[in-house]
Amino acid sequence: MAEAAQSAGELPVKRPREEEVNGAVSVEMEVNNGAAAELPECMSSVIPGWFSEISPMWPGEAHSLKVEKILYQGKSDYQNVIVFQSSTYGKVLVLDGVIQLTERDECAYQEMITHLPLCSIPNPRKVLVIGGGDGGVLREVSRHASVEKIDICEIDKMVVDVSKQFFPNVAVGFEDPRVTLHIGDGVAFLKAVPEGTYDAVIVDSSDPIGPAQELFEKPFFASVAKALRPGGVVCTQAESIWLHMHIIEDIVVNCRQVFKGSVNYAWTTVPTYPSGVIGFMLCSTEGPPVEFKNPINPIDADESHVKTYGPLKFYNSEIHSAAFCLPSFAKKVIESKAAK
Amino acid sequence: MAEAAQSAGELPVKRPREEEVNGAVSVEMEVNNGAAAELPECMSSVIPGWFSEISPMWPGEAHSLKVEKILYQGKSDYQNVIVFQSSTYGKVLVLDGVIQLTERDECAYQEMITHLPLCSIPNPRKVLVIGGGDGGVLREVSRHASVEKIDICEIDKMVVDVSKQFFPNVAVGFEDPRVTLHIGDGVAFLKAVPEGTYDAVIVDSSDPIGPAQELFEKPFFASVAKALRPGGVVCTQAESIWLHMHIIEDIVVNCRQVFKGSVNYAWTTVPTYPSGVIGFMLCSTEGPPVEFKNPINPIDADESHVKTYGPLKFYNSEIHSAAFCLPSFAKKVIESKAAK
Repeated sequence: MAEAAQSAGELPVKRPREEEVNGAVSVEMEVNNGAAAELPECMSSVIPGWFSEISPMWPGEAHSLKVEKILYQGKSDYQNVIVFQSSTYGKVLVLDGVIQLTERDECAYQEMITHLPLCSIPNPRKVLVIGGGDGGVLREVSRHASVEKIDICEIDKMVVDVSKQFFPNVAVGFEDPRVTLHIGDGVAFLKAVPEGTYDAVIVDSSDPIGPAQELFEKPFFASVAKALRPGGVVCTQAESIWLHMHIIEDIVVNCRQVFKGSVNYAWTTVPTYPSGVIGFMLCSTEGPPVEFKNPINPIDADESHVKTYGPLKFYNSEIHSAAFCLPSFAKKVIESKAAK
Repeated sequence: MAEAAQSAGELPVKRPREEEVNGAVSVEMEVNNGAAAELPECMSSVIPGWFSEISPMWPGEAHSLKVEKILYQGKSDYQNVIVFQSSTYGKVLVLDGVIQLTERDECAYQEMITHLPLCSIPNPRKVLVIGGGDGGVLREVSRHASVEKIDICEIDKMVVDVSKQFFPNVAVGFEDPRVTLHIGDGVAFLKAVPEGTYDAVIVDSSDPIGPAQELFEKPFFASVAKALRPGGVVCTQAESIWLHMHIIEDIVVNCRQVFKGSVNYAWTTVPTYPSGVIGFMLCSTEGPPVEFKNPINPIDADESHVKTYGPLKFYNSEIHSAAFCLPSFAKKVIESKAAK
């Protein structure tokens, strides 16, 4: 586990050779000592041997990673699942052509989506994760000693199996005895949850096209609110301020109607997500007020989890508060819709 | 100027059509109604008609933008200069294959590199910009009513000319009567500056390979320190925490030796820069102490500049403070080297 702590932002960067600089950089066409990696048909490639993330969700741009080796390709009932070894971001999990995590930067997403809600309330005990089949959010929830019960509802068993096989430092979250895995539809699962069951719900979903679409809609938020105790919190993946302000605006409007406590937007950097950032909606139900911007349950002050999971690579209490500070163009839109 | 305020993060995102979702997204191979844009030879392309940013500074990854039209290509004494119309980021300026600015996200970089230093000191009067030939930093410096004199030393006249022709909302910074443009080497310019001339120096450089290399070295920082008044400030482009921690570490060590006041690192999101973030070194010389994290000269409280330059799109006092909060992996390295 100690090695895992080395990966964030610390991979060696190749120093440029003199002949490579000043604009004459040639495209690296080949991998594996001369043979371009053969990519599966469902995987977009714009350079032979490179994976490119192309989607109508971010038209006109694409991020590409050099592929060393395809480790897995499968098609579940819900989506295409691919794992490849990249040359500079470690192993990469791709669902329906979209990067879900890389070993190099997964810490930023997993730590922020988990500790932003859990460090904002005193002594979280019961936590539900919707999606999150890779196990990374579970790993982060498990750091909290106060937590007694962690339910996870993931729709796609293949994601869980693939993560356990290829991302042991992420899937390690499944090993905690407090975790119960439910394979199934998160929307249906939530409807069956008795009112007021959870202190926190974390919605670790993919983009709102494909299997995750319903997780961005108002009836789903209403189910989440019902499943939370008074003053409970939800944190849901909420896209990019640079690319998806119209989606974010809709989410904020829906959340403002559903959640009677506070409604907030936070964001963080994740280099392999489109535009390099991802945001989160953080809301609380009516009850004891939650001031998300001021963490009252600092996980970085408690060192007991480090022995099992290694040190936090990304999250700390300062970056928690900072995550709620928005660029002016986003602040104007979001704060006007989030105000009571 | 009012239209300029519309561009940040507000370009319409095409809603996905049903048949485009679930992994079956086809690569858009063509632009301009069927004909792929012809790219100049010095411009890397991984999809026909798309520009790809490939560099040994970020091996194994590449960001690509769809090209609508090449607007300019030239070769100056220092670098290749290209301007193209992208399909979703507006016009794009590329130097030696590396994106310098796009109309859609330039606000984040220009506003942060300028207002982080200028809002940290009372009444900045004399400001020097090294590099910054596009004029965007000048535009932002000009918002400060207290400023009496703005010198800029840019090595490459072609950058200035191209910006004036293709990026009028950026090059507008050159129109302020307080601005004096010097075409020449920033290192030599600084050596000739009388001691203690400036309140602030902003180093808006490209990456430390190519013409900007010396701007990351210790003798240059020493010249900057000499050119500043006691308690004066410098802000210099300082790469990405995700990609270049070893470069950042070197810069911090150099700055700690040279600047006898405070030494700080801040960062912001810029989607079209590698890894989606860019950082800044902010240092002060011996004299009245400067607490960069707490802006004492808030430009967002003064509305007088809005009439000329439009509202700030990105910067505000909250995001100023937040920019100094670092992810744990970067905080550990930087704070240990920056400490006195």
